[in-house]
Amino acid sequence: MATATIIDGVSLANAVKDDLFRRVEVIGGRVSLDAVLIGDDQGSMLYAKNQAKACEKVGIEYTLHQLPETAPHVQVEELILRLNNDPKVTAIMVQMPLPKGVRADDIQSLIAPYKDVEGVNPANIGNIVFGRRSLVPCTALAVMEMIESTGIEIKGARAVCVGASTIVGKPVAVLLMQAQATVISTNEYTTNHDELTLGADILISAAGVPNLIRSKMVKTGAVVIDVGINRVEDEHGKKRTVGDVDFDGVKEVAGFITPVPGGVGPMTVAMLLRNTVQAAELNKLPRT
Amino acid sequence: MATATIIDGVSLANAVKDDLFRRVEVIGGRVSLDAVLIGDDQGSMLYAKNQAKACEKVGIEYTLHQLPETAPHVQVEELILRLNNDPKVTAIMVQMPLPKGVRADDIQSLIAPYKDVEGVNPANIGNIVFGRRSLVPCTALAVMEMIESTGIEIKGARAVCVGASTIVGKPVAVLLMQAQATVISTNEYTTNHDELTLGADILISAAGVPNLIRSKMVKTGAVVIDVGINRVEDEHGKKRTVGDVDFDGVKEVAGFITPVPGGVGPMTVAMLLRNTVQAAELNKLPRT
Repeated sequence: MATATIIDGVSLANAVKDDLFRRVEVIGGRVSLDAVLIGDDQGSMLYAKNQAKACEKVGIEYTLHQLPETAPHVQVEELILRLNNDPKVTAIMVQMPLPKGVRADDIQSLIAPYKDVEGVNPANIGNIVFGRRSLVPCTALAVMEMIESTGIEIKGARAVCVGASTIVGKPVAVLLMQAQATVISTNEYTTNHDELTLGADILISAAGVPNLIRSKMVKTGAVVIDVGINRVEDEHGKKRTVGDVDFDGVKEVAGFITPVPGGVGPMTVAMLLRNTVQAAELNKLPRT
Repeated sequence: MATATIIDGVSLANAVKDDLFRRVEVIGGRVSLDAVLIGDDQGSMLYAKNQAKACEKVGIEYTLHQLPETAPHVQVEELILRLNNDPKVTAIMVQMPLPKGVRADDIQSLIAPYKDVEGVNPANIGNIVFGRRSLVPCTALAVMEMIESTGIEIKGARAVCVGASTIVGKPVAVLLMQAQATVISTNEYTTNHDELTLGADILISAAGVPNLIRSKMVKTGAVVIDVGINRVEDEHGKKRTVGDVDFDGVKEVAGFITPVPGGVGPMTVAMLLRNTVQAAELNKLPRT
């Protein structure tokens, strides 16, 4: 039995970055990403450091704006408004989580939609529903890119999206509708779940449950995209990262499959960079 | 064989209006809807007149702002910004279609989200995707209300939405995901369509195709919501309005069904009024 082709997130992401490097050169001027970090969450600081590195590689200037953990909501608001109004700033992102006193929803809604390279302003996801040009949330965009990389025709395909989270499941479902797939969105209350997944030409899992998707649930030849990032312990107490998909089992049935790690994760970072370059390119156009 | 219970849009809409009449009294002050009409499209003028009447019945003050057909984009923009900034204005809607020189998307995106009672600003539909409080597009809201009126539990139910338009299909699908249904969105490229609709506990048709949904496609006892509004000619050349559903056939199988006319249509108007009252109520709260 043939095994699935691995959709290599690292190599796809590198191809995107090569392309971005050229696009940054074409833009000619400064291409930048202004990131906001409140407090000193270790995870966020590490993430910021990695972003800075990733940006540097494609020629994006990364500026980190830090405020203390105790910064009141209004101070964060003022910083965002200043970045919104600064014509030299073309891309803004805010590191999560924010301290308790800062209302994350309001801050995200405040970022100017055309500078919102993480696609967290609701106007950006709303623009997708309305079929308009928009900066799409990076993970959802990564999922679409990985599906497209297989060459499958999305129009008319049956796509099942397991999990309807606000960050991944719902935006991915909307993007697939936009691409004219037949879209099935499932959740923990779904009945006859296996019957639905078995019909899927494209199967996306974004549920955050290890080993949720097993080979008996997958159609032969299907494209399987694993968005899950779960930390599990093996029998020796050693921790490792796995997705939602039983990779070893499912790869015997699927036509294409993303690994975890090395799948959607690196591609998501590449999509942040691409949104950043896109925002800079749009900024060069006359705003109508 | 038992026939389906008719979901009476007129009587549901009247119940909503009775409730709104009381809510307007509770608010105490002026509750208003400011509508913008550009040009002299006969359909829009008639629609505006009917809106004024509907508003009057529940105690909403309706103000029509008219600009000539020749008004340039910037003049329409200025009017919207003036209404956005006027604290006495709590609800804004813009009549479609707009003249050629006016960019409808940009105008809709300009309406302050908390005054956007038609839910046309992408931020409002985006807020639904993100699970936040929002003014929801009126037709999608009407569909949800009509489903809820049957008493069916939406969580875990299988809902099939036929048609993925930006105005109805996609927003309805997102609202159903938010309500934790298993959601299936189909379109003209969907294969094995009947098999999908036959599994639906809730079947919504928003395709704009007369007689698309026939009894053999409907599960016994299903809730059937017909969003189609199609003008057809009978054998004597007389025109009448029908939905997407073969009403006479499907009512023998379904558990609940909406008629056309007298179903989703009147409820959509009621939802515009409800959004208007809700916007006025929110305006009474301190804006954080």
